[in-house]
Amino acid sequence: MILIDDLSLGREANLACLDDGIRFAKADCSDPVALRAAIDALNAPTIAEVWHLAANSDIAAGAKDLRVDLHRTLLTTTGVLLMLQELAPATIHFTSSSAVYGDRGDLEISELAGPLEPISYYGAMKLASEAQLRAAVESFVPKANIFRLSNVVGVPATHGVVLDFVDRLLAEPDRLAVQGDGMQRKPCLHVSELVDAMLFVAEHSQDRFNVFNVGPRDDGVSVATIAAIAVAELSPDAVVAFGTEPRGWVGDVPRFRLSVDKLATLGWTARLKSEAAVRRTVAEIIAQRRHTPCKP
Amino acid sequence: MILIDDLSLGREANLACLDDGIRFAKADCSDPVALRAAIDALNAPTIAEVWHLAANSDIAAGAKDLRVDLHRTLLTTTGVLLMLQELAPATIHFTSSSAVYGDRGDLEISELAGPLEPISYYGAMKLASEAQLRAAVESFVPKANIFRLSNVVGVPATHGVVLDFVDRLLAEPDRLAVQGDGMQRKPCLHVSELVDAMLFVAEHSQDRFNVFNVGPRDDGVSVATIAAIAVAELSPDAVVAFGTEPRGWVGDVPRFRLSVDKLATLGWTARLKSEAAVRRTVAEIIAQRRHTPCKP
Repeated sequence: MILIDDLSLGREANLACLDDGIRFAKADCSDPVALRAAIDALNAPTIAEVWHLAANSDIAAGAKDLRVDLHRTLLTTTGVLLMLQELAPATIHFTSSSAVYGDRGDLEISELAGPLEPISYYGAMKLASEAQLRAAVESFVPKANIFRLSNVVGVPATHGVVLDFVDRLLAEPDRLAVQGDGMQRKPCLHVSELVDAMLFVAEHSQDRFNVFNVGPRDDGVSVATIAAIAVAELSPDAVVAFGTEPRGWVGDVPRFRLSVDKLATLGWTARLKSEAAVRRTVAEIIAQRRHTPCKP
Repeated sequence: MILIDDLSLGREANLACLDDGIRFAKADCSDPVALRAAIDALNAPTIAEVWHLAANSDIAAGAKDLRVDLHRTLLTTTGVLLMLQELAPATIHFTSSSAVYGDRGDLEISELAGPLEPISYYGAMKLASEAQLRAAVESFVPKANIFRLSNVVGVPATHGVVLDFVDRLLAEPDRLAVQGDGMQRKPCLHVSELVDAMLFVAEHSQDRFNVFNVGPRDDGVSVATIAAIAVAELSPDAVVAFGTEPRGWVGDVPRFRLSVDKLATLGWTARLKSEAAVRRTVAEIIAQRRHTPCKP
C-alpha cells in the first residue's frame, strides 16, 4: 500500500505511526505530473483501488479565498482522475461531505435529497468532486464509492471544534469563548467508526456509483454540550462565554440531520452516539497533547 | 455594455453584428488577471451585472479530456468570481444546463430534484459552477440567477445536431447518417426565446439565489424528427441511416423532460414548441450558410 500527501495540513510526525508495508511519498495530488512521479518513485504495482481523502480542512482559509478549496478539494480529485486515466482505471473511494447539502435546517437528509445548495466553497468543491467522479464512472472509472460524512471526531486531530476547545482550555483554563450561540448541533462520528464504515461499504456496495451518508444514528450534539464536556474534563470552574450568532462562521451549517438508513440497510450502523464520540475524543486529544501521536 | 470572449469557439465575424455601444475585448475568463486587464482596457464603469455565458461547447473534446470542461466550464466561473471579488460585488446571471440532472429517463425534473448525477464532464462542471456561485452568494455576491437550459437552437449556430444535419446534407445530399438510434428526444428552445426568458427572470426573480429550468412547454422532439425536418427542407430524397445505440455519444442524455412550472409561475412561458423551434432553426441555418452572419 502506498500513501501520498503534500503534508500541507498533515504532520510529518504522524507518519511514524504507519503500519509496516505502507510506503509514503510527498506530492500534491492536484498536480497529476507530481502525483505520477511519486507513484513511479515508489515502484508501486498496478493500482487496484484509490482511497482519495485529500482536501482542504482549513475552513477559515477556504472561506476567505475560493482558490483554496478549488485547489485542495476539487483539483486533488481531478489530479487523481488524470493519474488513473494515464495509468489504469481503478475503483475510487472518496470522502465527500454532508456540506454538499447546504443548510437544510432540521430536515433529515437522505442521499437522494435535492436541491444541493452548498453554502461554503468547501461544500461546493466536494459536490464538484462528486460530479466529476460521477462523469468519470460514465467514461472510464469502473466504480466509485462516495461517502458523505457528518462531523468526524477523534485523533490524531488537526482541526475542529473539539481540538479547539481542548487547546484553548489548556492555554487559558479560566474561560472558554465559543463562536456562535452554542446551539449549533451536529452529528459526530468517531474516526475509528468512519474507517470501519468505509471498509464495510468498499466490500458490500453493489452499484458502479454509490453515495452513502456516514454518521451516527442520532440528531447530533450541540456545541454547548461539547463545550461542557471539555470543561468538565479539563477545567470544571471555567466560564463558558457564548456569542450571539446562530452560526460560528461564514459557511457554517448551524444544524443538520443526516439519514443513515441507506447504510443501515446495507448492514452498517455506528455504535457510538454523537455525545459519546465527543467524550471519547476529548480524552484522546488530552492524551495526544501529552504524548506522542502514535500512542494516544 | 462590455462583452468578453476568448474567441476559442466563437467567431470574430459575429462581432460585426453587435449593437452600437457594446464594446468587445478578447480575454480568457478563466484567467482572472487577463479578465481584469480586459475590463480595465475597456475603461468600463462599475460592473452592475454579469451575464456569465462562457463555457465549453465542444462536446466531443470535453468527453475525451476532463481538463476541457474544467477550464472552460468551471474555471471561467471561478475567474468571474475572482474578478468580482477584486472589483466590486455584482449580480450574476449564469447559463447552466439540464445536464446537471444526469440521466433521469422519462421523469419530469423540477429544480428541486435530487440526486444530481451528471454523466458528462460538461454537466459536472456546470453543477460545480452552480455550487461555487451558491457559496459565493453566501459570501459576497449579492444575487445569482441560474438558468438550467434545455437544448437551445437558433442562429448564429456553432455546433449542435441541427447545424450538423444541415451541414452534412449540404455536403452530401444523398444520405444522412445519424449517431444513435434516432429515438433520443430532447426539449428544444429557440435562442430568441431563451434571451427573452433570461431578461424576464433578471427582472422578476425574488430570492438572492434563484434556479430556473428554461425550456419549451413540451416533451421535446426526437432526433429522427429533426433529421426528417432537415431532409424535407434540403434534400427530400436523402436516405436517413440510424445507428443502433440509444445514445449519440458518451455523456449524451438520450431523453429528458424538464418541468418549467417554476418559470411559468413567475410569468414566462415559451411560445414555440420544440418541433417549431427546430423547423425555424433549420431555415435560419440554411440562410446563415448562404448569407453573412448578421442577416440570417
